[in-house]
Amino acid sequence: MPIYLENYRTITDGKKFTKVVPVNTEKDVGLPNGHIPYQKIREIPPGSSLWNHGKYYYVFASTVIDYMKFVLKRKTQIIYPKDAAYILLKMGIRPGSIIGETGTGSGALTSVFSVVAGEKGRVYTYEKETKYQSIIENNISSGIDHANVHVFFQDLEESDPYPNMDAFFVDVKEPWNIIDRIAASVKAGGYIGCLVPTTNQVSILLKMAKRNNLFITEVTELMKRDYRPLADRLRPEDRMIGHTGFIIFARKLSGDIIEL
Amino acid sequence: MPIYLENYRTITDGKKFTKVVPVNTEKDVGLPNGHIPYQKIREIPPGSSLWNHGKYYYVFASTVIDYMKFVLKRKTQIIYPKDAAYILLKMGIRPGSIIGETGTGSGALTSVFSVVAGEKGRVYTYEKETKYQSIIENNISSGIDHANVHVFFQDLEESDPYPNMDAFFVDVKEPWNIIDRIAASVKAGGYIGCLVPTTNQVSILLKMAKRNNLFITEVTELMKRDYRPLADRLRPEDRMIGHTGFIIFARKLSGDIIEL
Amino acid sequence: MPIYLENYRTITDGKKFTKVVPVNTEKDVGLPNGHIPYQKIREIPPGSSLWNHGKYYYVFASTVIDYMKFVLKRKTQIIYPKDAAYILLKMGIRPGSIIGETGTGSGALTSVFSVVAGEKGRVYTYEKETKYQSIIENNISSGIDHANVHVFFQDLEESDPYPNMDAFFVDVKEPWNIIDRIAASVKAGGYIGCLVPTTNQVSILLKMAKRNNLFITEVTELMKRDYRPLADRLRPEDRMIGHTGFIIFARKLSGDIIEL
Amino acid sequence: MPIYLENYRTITDGKKFTKVVPVNTEKDVGLPNGHIPYQKIREIPPGSSLWNHGKYYYVFASTVIDYMKFVLKRKTQIIYPKDAAYILLKMGIRPGSIIGETGTGSGALTSVFSVVAGEKGRVYTYEKETKYQSIIENNISSGIDHANVHVFFQDLEESDPYPNMDAFFVDVKEPWNIIDRIAASVKAGGYIGCLVPTTNQVSILLKMAKRNNLFITEVTELMKRDYRPLADRLRPEDRMIGHTGFIIFARKLSGDIIEL
Repeated sequence: MPIYLENYRTITDGKKFTKVVPVNTEKDVGLPNGHIPYQKIREIPPGSSLWNHGKYYYVFASTVIDYMKFVLKRKTQIIYPKDAAYILLKMGIRPGSIIGETGTGSGALTSVFSVVAGEKGRVYTYEKETKYQSIIENNISSGIDHANVHVFFQDLEESDPYPNMDAFFVDVKEPWNIIDRIAASVKAGGYIGCLVPTTNQVSILLKMAKRNNLFITEVTELMKRDYRPLADRLRPEDRMIGHTGFIIFARKLSGDIIEL
Repeated sequence: MPIYLENYRTITDGKKFTKVVPVNTEKDVGLPNGHIPYQKIREIPPGSSLWNHGKYYYVFASTVIDYMKFVLKRKTQIIYPKDAAYILLKMGIRPGSIIGETGTGSGALTSVFSVVAGEKGRVYTYEKETKYQSIIENNISSGIDHANVHVFFQDLEESDPYPNMDAFFVDVKEPWNIIDRIAASVKAGGYIGCLVPTTNQVSILLKMAKRNNLFITEVTELMKRDYRPLADRLRPEDRMIGHTGFIIFARKLSGDIIEL
Repeated sequence: MPIYLENYRTITDGKKFTKVVPVNTEKDVGLPNGHIPYQKIREIPPGSSLWNHGKYYYVFASTVIDYMKFVLKRKTQIIYPKDAAYILLKMGIRPGSIIGETGTGSGALTSVFSVVAGEKGRVYTYEKETKYQSIIENNISSGIDHANVHVFFQDLEESDPYPNMDAFFVDVKEPWNIIDRIAASVKAGGYIGCLVPTTNQVSILLKMAKRNNLFITEVTELMKRDYRPLADRLRPEDRMIGHTGFIIFARKLSGDIIEL
Repeated sequence: MPIYLENYRTITDGKKFTKVVPVNTEKDVGLPNGHIPYQKIREIPPGSSLWNHGKYYYVFASTVIDYMKFVLKRKTQIIYPKDAAYILLKMGIRPGSIIGETGTGSGALTSVFSVVAGEKGRVYTYEKETKYQSIIENNISSGIDHANVHVFFQDLEESDPYPNMDAFFVDVKEPWNIIDRIAASVKAGGYIGCLVPTTNQVSILLKMAKRNNLFITEVTELMKRDYRPLADRLRPEDRMIGHTGFIIFARKLSGDIIEL
C-alpha cells in the first residue's frame, strides 16, 4: 500500500495556496492569515472545508501528483504527470509488473511505478549519481512503499541490471551508453521507454535502436493545456509548459527470425 | 489478470500494417503478400520477427492501447490513450480502487480501470443506451477481467450508483443531469472526472460544481504530437489529432465546514 | 514611409539583453558592462557588431516586432506578432487598403496596418477610453506614419465609423455592442476580424453574426513554439505563451439574394 | 495592383463546397445541385448570397489565401498562410521592399511578397527545377502582378543573386549549399528566413550561420488550431495540421566590429 496516498494531506484554497503535509506532522501548518494546529491535521476528515479569516481552504488526501510536486525533494527536474501517466499506460505497467528504471533522479517516476506495480510487482531503479543518494533514500522512506522498490546506486555502464524485466524506462543524459545493457535486461517483447529533451538525442537513439534489437513503436511528446475554471470567462491559461521532453518507445525483439 | 495482455498478439510492420488477433484464433492472418497459418500464431514467441516476401513483420503481446484501438468493437468514439492515462493518474486509480464510470460506451476506459484496479478493486460501470449492450458484453468477455467489472445497463437519472466510491468518471453527453447522483456516490475527498468535447459543456459543468459540493481541481486538455522515427529526417507528423476533449477534475467535499 | 523602420535601432546580445532606441537619442545607451555614447548610435551602420568588455552586441534597424514590443508604451495587452501577421494576411490588407480598427489600445496593430496600407491606404482607428489618449498620441507620433492613420477618441456605440471600409478589426471587451455599426461600415464582401480571449465571447459573437449579415469564415487560434537555437542541443523552449486569443473572421454580406 | 484580388471570385457554402474562378471565366460553375452560368459570374456583386435548390452559397472577391489554396497549380507543397503571414511580418516586408526568394516552388509565397512589396518593391525569385517552369509561369501570369516579380530559372549554386536585398527567404531542400551566396546578396542588417521540415536541417543551418555572418534571431514554428463555428457547441476541430515546418530567422551582419 503506498504510504503517501494515506499519510499526506493537501490543503489548498484552489488558487495560489497549496501545501502538502504528513498527517502526523508535528509542526503547525501556516495559512496566509493564521495556521492549523498540527494536532488538528490528523483529525480533519478528508473532503472537509476550513473557514479561516473569511476564506475557505479544503483538505484532501494527497494525490500521487501532489506527492510528486510538493513532497519529493528534488535535485533534478522531475517527470511531469502528463508524461508519467502516458509512460505507465504505453509500457503496459500493471499490478505485478517487473520494471527497471534509470536514473532514479528524485524518485518521482519510481513512486508512480511502485503504486501501480503493487505488492506482486517490483521496481529496480538505478542511479549513478551518488550525490543524490540521501535525497532518494529520504524520498523513498517518505512515501514509497519499500516492499516493491529496490534502489541501486550503480552506474549501468559498469554493471548489468536484472534480467527478464517486463519494462525498462530510461531518463539519463546519454542513454546510448547503456542502451545495450538495458536491451539485454528486458524480456523478448518487453517495453523500453526513454525521455530526452533534445531532438539530437532522439536522432542518436533512433540510430542505436536497430543494432540493439529494439523495434521503435512511437516517438511522441505530450502538451498539456490548462484552462481557467471560470464558467463565464472560460479560457486557456496565458502561459503553459512548452516542452518537457520527447518520449521514445520501443519493444525488445528476440532476434529470432521466422520465415513464413 | 487481464486476459487481453496475455491472449492477444499484435502483428505489425511498424508502418501501415498492424493487426491484432487472439492467440487462439482459428482464422489465418492475412499479410499484404501472404498469410500466417492460424496454428502458428500460438507458437510464435512474442518479440519474434517474421520474414515474408522480402519484408519483416514483428509479433508482440498486445498492449492495452492495441486492445483499445484494434480489438474493442465500437459504436461510440472511444477514449484516447493520452486521456485515459492522465485520468488514471490524476484520479489516483491504483490496485484496490473502487471506481464508478458512466457511460460505458465501448468499454475502453473500463478496461484500463479494470487492469489497474486489479483483483482487489472494483469497476462499476453504467450505460443507459441499451443498444450498446451486446457490444459491451462482447467487448468485456473478449478481454476484460470479469472478476472486477460490473456493468449496469441503467440510466443514472433513474437510479443511484453504489455509494462510497473512490473515484467516478463521467463521459456522457449531458453530465449535468446526473452530476448530483454521481457526487452523492463518491466518498468525501474522492475524485470525479468528466470529459466533454465542447467549451459550452465545460461552462455548464463549472456552474453545476458548486451546488454539488464539488471542488474543481483542474480543467485541461492534452495534445499529443507524434514524430516520424527517422534519425536523419526527424520531424513531427504532418497531421495530428486536434481535439479529443476537455477534461474536468474535481474532488468531492463532505460539506462539513471547520472553523479555525 | 514608416518612421520607425528607419529611425530606431535594436541593440542585442542575442540572449537576455535587448534595447531599442531612437537613432537620434540624446541619452547614452547602457550595456551590462558599459555604455554606448549617444552620438555613436547614429553613426553605427546597421548590421555592425559591437565589442564591449569581452562580449558582442549587435546593432540592427528595428523591426516592426521590436517596435511593438519595446517602443510602444502600453496600458493594455498588445497584440502578439503571430496574431497581427495572420490578421493582416487573412483580411487581405495590402497597399491601398481602407481599414477600420477599434479599440486602438496602444496602437500596436494600428502600426502594422499603417505600414502595409502604405501611402494610398487609410487606417481609421477608434478608442473610447479617453485615458489612453496621451499614450496613443505619443505612440503614434513616436513611430507611425501620420499621413495614413486617423485616430478617433470616440465610443462607437454612440457614433458611426466611416462607411465602405475594406476591412475592420475589433479588439474590445464587448464587441457585440458595436458589431452592428461595424458591419454597417464595411463594404459588401469586406472583411471583419475580432480577437477575444474567452470561449464565451466567441459563442456570443457567433450568435450575433447572422443577424448582422456576417458570414463567418474562420474561428482559429495560433500557437507559437520557439526553439533554443543550439545546433547540438535543439529543443523547444521550456515555457511558451499558452493563449493570446481566439480570432474570428467574417465577410460582410450585402444581404442581396440572387436566385439561380 | 495584384490581379487576383480583383479578378477572382470565391463561391462557397461555408462548409464543404468552395470553388475559386476567374471573373471572366468562360465555363459554367458547377454547384452540388445545379450551376452558375458563366456570364453571371461577372455580374454578381461580391458579398451576394445565391439561392440554389434550397441552399445558400456566398460570393466574394477571392483572398490571397483562397488564391494560394485554390488557384495556384502546384507540383510542390505550398507554404501555409500562417507561415507566410509570420514570415512577412518578421522579415519586415513592406511597400518598397527588395526581396529575394528561392525556390520559387509554385509561387505561393512569391505572390504574397509581391502584393505587399507593391509597385515600388521587387521580388527576385530563383528556381532551379526547370520542370516547374511552365507551372510557375502559368501561376504568375494567372494572378501575380508582373511588374514587381522577376523569376530566374537558375541554380543559385552556380550563379549569384542580386546584391543588396532587404530580405531573402529560402525554401529549398539543402539550404546550406547556397547559404553563402544568399548571405552575400543581402544588405548589412537585412533579413534572412528559411523554412525546413526536419530538426536535422535546423541543426545544420544553425551550424552554418556563424561562418556566414548570420545572426540567428529566432527558430520557431506556428501551430494553427481551428474551431467549429457553432455558438452552442464550440470546440476545436478533430484534426489539425501537425507540422508544416520550422522557420529560422536571421539578420545579416556586416562583419564590421566596433570596439567600445
